[in-house]
Amino acid sequence: MKSSRIKTGILGLDKMLGGGIPEGRVVLLVGGPGTGKTIFCSQFLVNGIEMYGDNGVFVSLDEGKSHYLREMSVFGWDLEKLEQEKKWAFVNASPIKYAISPDEVSNISIGSKDFSLSNLINKIKSSVDKIKANRVVVDPITSLVFQYPDVINRRAAILNIVEGLTEIGITSMVTTELKTSGFERNIQLEEYLAHGVIVLQTLQVGKTSIRAIQVEKMRETSIDPQIRPYRITEKGIEIYQKESVF
Amino acid sequence: MKSSRIKTGILGLDKMLGGGIPEGRVVLLVGGPGTGKTIFCSQFLVNGIEMYGDNGVFVSLDEGKSHYLREMSVFGWDLEKLEQEKKWAFVNASPIKYAISPDEVSNISIGSKDFSLSNLINKIKSSVDKIKANRVVVDPITSLVFQYPDVINRRAAILNIVEGLTEIGITSMVTTELKTSGFERNIQLEEYLAHGVIVLQTLQVGKTSIRAIQVEKMRETSIDPQIRPYRITEKGIEIYQKESVF
Amino acid sequence: MKSSRIKTGILGLDKMLGGGIPEGRVVLLVGGPGTGKTIFCSQFLVNGIEMYGDNGVFVSLDEGKSHYLREMSVFGWDLEKLEQEKKWAFVNASPIKYAISPDEVSNISIGSKDFSLSNLINKIKSSVDKIKANRVVVDPITSLVFQYPDVINRRAAILNIVEGLTEIGITSMVTTELKTSGFERNIQLEEYLAHGVIVLQTLQVGKTSIRAIQVEKMRETSIDPQIRPYRITEKGIEIYQKESVF
Amino acid sequence: MKSSRIKTGILGLDKMLGGGIPEGRVVLLVGGPGTGKTIFCSQFLVNGIEMYGDNGVFVSLDEGKSHYLREMSVFGWDLEKLEQEKKWAFVNASPIKYAISPDEVSNISIGSKDFSLSNLINKIKSSVDKIKANRVVVDPITSLVFQYPDVINRRAAILNIVEGLTEIGITSMVTTELKTSGFERNIQLEEYLAHGVIVLQTLQVGKTSIRAIQVEKMRETSIDPQIRPYRITEKGIEIYQKESVF
Amino acid sequence: MKSSRIKTGILGLDKMLGGGIPEGRVVLLVGGPGTGKTIFCSQFLVNGIEMYGDNGVFVSLDEGKSHYLREMSVFGWDLEKLEQEKKWAFVNASPIKYAISPDEVSNISIGSKDFSLSNLINKIKSSVDKIKANRVVVDPITSLVFQYPDVINRRAAILNIVEGLTEIGITSMVTTELKTSGFERNIQLEEYLAHGVIVLQTLQVGKTSIRAIQVEKMRETSIDPQIRPYRITEKGIEIYQKESVF
Amino acid sequence: MKSSRIKTGILGLDKMLGGGIPEGRVVLLVGGPGTGKTIFCSQFLVNGIEMYGDNGVFVSLDEGKSHYLREMSVFGWDLEKLEQEKKWAFVNASPIKYAISPDEVSNISIGSKDFSLSNLINKIKSSVDKIKANRVVVDPITSLVFQYPDVINRRAAILNIVEGLTEIGITSMVTTELKTSGFERNIQLEEYLAHGVIVLQTLQVGKTSIRAIQVEKMRETSIDPQIRPYRITEKGIEIYQKESVF
Repeated sequence: MKSSRIKTGILGLDKMLGGGIPEGRVVLLVGGPGTGKTIFCSQFLVNGIEMYGDNGVFVSLDEGKSHYLREMSVFGWDLEKLEQEKKWAFVNASPIKYAISPDEVSNISIGSKDFSLSNLINKIKSSVDKIKANRVVVDPITSLVFQYPDVINRRAAILNIVEGLTEIGITSMVTTELKTSGFERNIQLEEYLAHGVIVLQTLQVGKTSIRAIQVEKMRETSIDPQIRPYRITEKGIEIYQKESVF
Repeated sequence: MKSSRIKTGILGLDKMLGGGIPEGRVVLLVGGPGTGKTIFCSQFLVNGIEMYGDNGVFVSLDEGKSHYLREMSVFGWDLEKLEQEKKWAFVNASPIKYAISPDEVSNISIGSKDFSLSNLINKIKSSVDKIKANRVVVDPITSLVFQYPDVINRRAAILNIVEGLTEIGITSMVTTELKTSGFERNIQLEEYLAHGVIVLQTLQVGKTSIRAIQVEKMRETSIDPQIRPYRITEKGIEIYQKESVF
Repeated sequence: MKSSRIKTGILGLDKMLGGGIPEGRVVLLVGGPGTGKTIFCSQFLVNGIEMYGDNGVFVSLDEGKSHYLREMSVFGWDLEKLEQEKKWAFVNASPIKYAISPDEVSNISIGSKDFSLSNLINKIKSSVDKIKANRVVVDPITSLVFQYPDVINRRAAILNIVEGLTEIGITSMVTTELKTSGFERNIQLEEYLAHGVIVLQTLQVGKTSIRAIQVEKMRETSIDPQIRPYRITEKGIEIYQKESVF
Repeated sequence: MKSSRIKTGILGLDKMLGGGIPEGRVVLLVGGPGTGKTIFCSQFLVNGIEMYGDNGVFVSLDEGKSHYLREMSVFGWDLEKLEQEKKWAFVNASPIKYAISPDEVSNISIGSKDFSLSNLINKIKSSVDKIKANRVVVDPITSLVFQYPDVINRRAAILNIVEGLTEIGITSMVTTELKTSGFERNIQLEEYLAHGVIVLQTLQVGKTSIRAIQVEKMRETSIDPQIRPYRITEKGIEIYQKESVF
Repeated sequence: MKSSRIKTGILGLDKMLGGGIPEGRVVLLVGGPGTGKTIFCSQFLVNGIEMYGDNGVFVSLDEGKSHYLREMSVFGWDLEKLEQEKKWAFVNASPIKYAISPDEVSNISIGSKDFSLSNLINKIKSSVDKIKANRVVVDPITSLVFQYPDVINRRAAILNIVEGLTEIGITSMVTTELKTSGFERNIQLEEYLAHGVIVLQTLQVGKTSIRAIQVEKMRETSIDPQIRPYRITEKGIEIYQKESVF
Repeated sequence: MKSSRIKTGILGLDKMLGGGIPEGRVVLLVGGPGTGKTIFCSQFLVNGIEMYGDNGVFVSLDEGKSHYLREMSVFGWDLEKLEQEKKWAFVNASPIKYAISPDEVSNISIGSKDFSLSNLINKIKSSVDKIKANRVVVDPITSLVFQYPDVINRRAAILNIVEGLTEIGITSMVTTELKTSGFERNIQLEEYLAHGVIVLQTLQVGKTSIRAIQVEKMRETSIDPQIRPYRITEKGIEIYQKESVF
C-alpha cells in the first residue's frame, strides 16, 4: 500500500521530494549555522495548516516560546492565532538542553527508552492528540543526542528518537547540526537513521556564497538529488528549480 | 572447480560483475545515505525469484515489515504474493538494532560466535531452509558491528557475519554505511572482509550530483572497475554502461 | 512582536545585518588571531554610546584595564572620559582565565550554573545596572569554556553563557577563537549556540592575504551571507560593501 | 656477496624490481580492496614452480583451501596437481583470524615471539621443509597484527613476522591492507619494516579508474619507482611498462 | 596613552609592524624547522643594543652557550664582547627541556605559577635587572608547555609564561614550533595568547621553496598582513618589501 | 669560533649544505620507505673514510651485519676491508628494536638517561674510541623512540639521543621515518630537536614519481632550501643541482 504524501508547501521542494514526504516518516534536516533550519521546519508546519489542513506541533529544544515567536514574526505567520484556533501548538522542551547526568550516562540501557526522551515523547504525543496534529517538528535533536559521550549510545539515542516519533504515527521533521562542510564532508550517523534527509549548507562557489539545499535521501521516493540554490525571503524558504548552484 | 554465477538481473551490473556473483559468496554493498542500498538488495532478491528461479530471504535490521513493504511497493514487486508462494521470506531482526550490553561487550569471546549473532544466523538458516532459498540479504549489518566500541571486536564481528552467512551455503548480500565520501575516501575495514564489494555514492562531478556505482572487488571475477552512473527508477536500480560519470 | 534593531555603527556591517542586531540577542564573533575581534566589539560599544545613546559594558577575560586602554587609544576613543560620564564601564574578569579546578570539573552539574560563571554574570549585571547599559561585550569567552575537558561540558558552558547574558536582557557580543581556517573549515559548536554569528578571517586569495568578514547567522534577520573584505583603520573596522574578496 | 634474484615472472614486474626480489628477503604487498593481492602472490608462487623450479608454500590467513582453489581456478593453474607433485603446499591458518585474547594482549612479551605466531612460523617451516620450498606467501598478515590494540605492539608483531620468515631462510611475500588511498596517502608502519614494498591501488585519474602498481622499496635494488598501470587478466596480473597511468 | 615602539631593526619588518613592537608586549615567533627562529630573535636583541641602545637577555631552553655562540658567529655579532660590556646576557635554561615529573603534572595548580616556571621567571628577572635590559628573548617555550599532557594545562602554561614575562615589564619575544604547514594550517592555541604573532614558514609556491614571513597579529598596531619573502643572509634575516612571495 | 664543516661527499649535497655539516652536530635524515636512508648515511661514512680521512661507526637498529653488508655490496664499497683497516665499525644494536618493557615505560625518568639508551651510547662511544671515528650514524632511531606511548616521553627520548650523541663529540647522522607525505605534510617533532634536517621523499609531480631531497634545516649554515631531484645509482645517492623537481 503506497503512502500518502505530505506536502511541505515550500516553493520548489515538493517537486524535489517526488511530491512530498511519505506520511508517517521522520525526515532529518541537517544544516550549518544560519542556514534556516528553524525557519524551514516552522514553514513546514504553517504551510501544513494553511495549505493542507494539517495541524502541527512545534517542539523546541533550543528556545523558549517568546523568543521563537519573535523570530518567526518576520514571516507574517500569526502563530498565536493559530494556537488559539488549536491548529498549532508549541512544546517548550528547551530546559532539556541543559540536562546532563554524568552518572546516568554510563548506566542507561537504551533498549528501553531513555527517561528524559520517554517524557518528551509522551509530552509530544499529548500535544499532538490535543489538537489532532498531523505534523510534528523537533528543533533541534542535538542535546537529546549529545548527553552521551560515545558513538554507541548516541546512535541508540537517535534510533530512539526516530522510533518514538514514528510510534506517534504522524509525519515528523527533526533538525540537527552539520559538523563539517563542503562537497566532500563527513557523513554523520544520523543521516543513516532517519527515513529522509535534507541538507542545507552555505557553500562557497567561486566568488559567491550560495545557500544550497539538497534532498539526500527519502524512503519510498524518487528524489531529485541535485543541489539547488535557495533563498530566505520574507515568505520563508524558497527554492528555485530552474537555477543551478553553479 | 569454477563457480556458478548468480545473476543480479540489475540492468548493467552483471556485465560489470563478469557475469554475476560467484555462488555462495558474500557481497558487501557499501553506500551513502539515500543511494538506494535497500532497493538494490531487494531487487537482487526479486530478480532472483522472477528471472532465475532463486528463492530469497530478506533479513531486515533496520525496518519492520510493514514499513519495508510500503517502501518497496513503488517498484511494482508483489512481495506479499511471493511470500505466500513461499518464494520470498522476511526476517524481522530490527529489534537487534537497539541491543546494547555494555557489560557483555568487554567479555565476549568472538572466536566462538556472539550470542545475538548466533541466534540471528540460526533464524536466517531456518528461513532459508523453509523456502529453500538460494539468496539472502542482510540490510544493514551496521548494528551487529557497532555493538562493539573497538576496532578489534568490530573486525571480528564482521568476520563472524561473513563466516556465518558463508556456512549457510548460499549467496549473500549485506549492506553497510559509507563514513567518508569522494574519490579519495578512507577504506573501511569491512571492504577487506567480504568476498565482493560494490560501492554506491552520490558524487559531485562539476555542476552535477551523479549517482555512481563501482564494483570494487569480487573474488574469482574479472571485474570492470570503472565508476558508472546509475538511476533509481520505477523499476529499481538501472546502470547505463555506455555512459560515463564524467 | 518584531524586535528593535541595535545598530553596530560599523561601516558596512549594519546593512549586512539587515539593519542591525535584534535587541536582546547574543552575537558570537569568531575570528582568527589578529583579525580584530577586540577592536570590533569595542567599536560596537563606543558607537553605541556616541551614535545611538546606548551605554555599554566591556567585560575583559583577556587583559587588564590599562593594557586594554592602551590598545584602544589608537582609535581616538576617549574611554576614560566615557567611563567618568558613566556611559562606559570595564569589568576586569581576566583573573578567570587562570582558574582551573581539575577536581571540580568532573563533578560540576551544569544544569545549575557554574560557580565562577554565576559570579561573573552577577558582576556583569551589576555593572550594567549601574550605568543602565544597553550593550555588553565579553571578550573572549574561551577560558570560561575551556575549563572543561570534554565536549558535553563545554557545550553546556556555552549554553550557560548565552543563557546568562540573555537573562540580563540587553544585547550582547561575545568573542571566541577560530580553530581551523579556510573556506571549508570545521564548524565549531559555539556557532550553533549563539543567536548570531559573525566570522572574521584572514584568507589567502591567490596572491593576497585579505581580511574577510562574513555574517554567518542572525536570528530574525535576512542576512547578506557574502564574504566581504574589511580593513582595520584608525577609525576601527571598516567594511566595503562594493568590494569583493576575490 | 651479492644476492641472487628471485624472479616473480609477473609480466613487467621483474624489470621494475631490477631483476627480481633479492633472495631471502620479505616483500610486503600492500593494496586496496579488490586490487588483486591474493592473485599477485599466488602467481608469484606458481611462476616460481613453473618457470624457475622454485617450490612454494601458500599460507592463508583469510580463506580455507576449497574457496582459495575455486578462486584461483580461473587462471588455469592446476594447484591440486602441483600439490600432489609436492611442488606446492597450502597451509590453512585461517582460524587464526578469529583468535582474540584480550587478557593475553596486555601481557605478551614481544621480545620472545608471540605464541600463536610461533606456532604459525613452525607450521610454515615444516611445510617448507617438506617440499623443499624456495618461496612462501602469507596472505594476509592483518589478523596477526590486529590482535594488538596499540601501535607499539603492532609494530613488534610485524617485526616478529618479518624476523620469523627471514629465519626460515627463503624468499617471502606477505600481504596487507591499505588504510587510506590516493597519491598523498598516509604511510603505514609496515612499509618501514619489510625489506621491500609493492603498492597496488585503484586510482581515479581524470575520468578513469586505473589499476596502478608501484615498487616503493626494495633493499639491494635499483628500483624503478614509477607508478604503472596493470591489468588482471585470465593469466593473472600483467603490467605494461610502456604505458603510463596518466 | 600610546606605547613607544620597540624597533626590531630587521630590514623590512618594522614597516610591517607599523613602526615596531609596542613596548612591554610579548610577541610569539612561530615557525617551522630551519626557518630561522633563533637567528631572528637573536638579531632582535643585537639590533636592540647596536642600533637602539636597548640591552637584552637571551634565555635559551634549547642549547647551551657555547653551541649558541658558535651558531651566531656567522653573523658577525660579537656577543661575548657585548656580554662583557654588560649589554647582553645569556641565561642557560636548557636543562629545563629534560624536566618531566609525571606525578606533578596532574597535581600542579596553574593558578599559582608552576614551580619551574617561577624559578625561570625569577632567573630572567635577575638577569634583566643586572644589565638593565630592555628586551628579552625566550627560545623556545616548547618544553615549558609540553610538560603537560592536556590542552587545559598547556593553555595555562602559555598564559603563565606571557603573564610572567609581562610582569618583568620589558618587551619580550618567545619562539615556538609550527605543527602543520601551508596556507590553511591549523591555528595553534599559543597564537591567541600572545600579544603579537609573527609566522615563519618555508612554503612551496609552484616550483619554488620560498621562505615566507607574515605578521599575523600585533596589539595596538595597524599591521601589514601580507605574506612576504625573506632571506637568511650573512647579516641575519632580511625581508624584501617590494617582493611578493608569488 | 666557527665550526669546521664535515663534508658528506654526496654529489650535489655539500653545496646545498653550505659546505658541509657543522662539526659535532646531529643531523636527522627523515624519509619515506624506499627513499634510500640507509644508503645515504652509509655513503656519508664511506665518503668520510675514502675522501676525507674520517673514520666512521655505523650503528644499526634495523638489520644485522650480514644483511647490511649484502645490501651495501652493490655500491662497490668494501666495508669488510675498511673494518679490518679499523677505519669503519659496525655496531649491531638491532636486538633493541624488539625491546618493549610496558612496566618500565611509565616509570622511566628521562632526566637521567634511559637504561637501554645509556647502554647504547656507551657501546657507540666505545666503538668510536676504538677506531678514533669522526663520524657516526644511527639507523634508524625509531625503535628507541617508539618504546614510549606518549608524546612527552618520545620527545624526551629524542632529546636524549641527540644529547647523548652530541656528548660523544663527533658528527652524527640519525635516520627516522616520515609519517605523512606531500608538500603540506605534518611536521614531526624530531625535526625540531635535531641540529639539522634533511628530508627524502618520493613525490608525485604531475605524471612522474620523483625522488626529491630537501635540506630543511642546518644550524650555523646558509642552506639552499630548494627541493631537488636525486637518484640512487650504483655509486649511491646523487643529486643534480641544475635540475628542478618540476
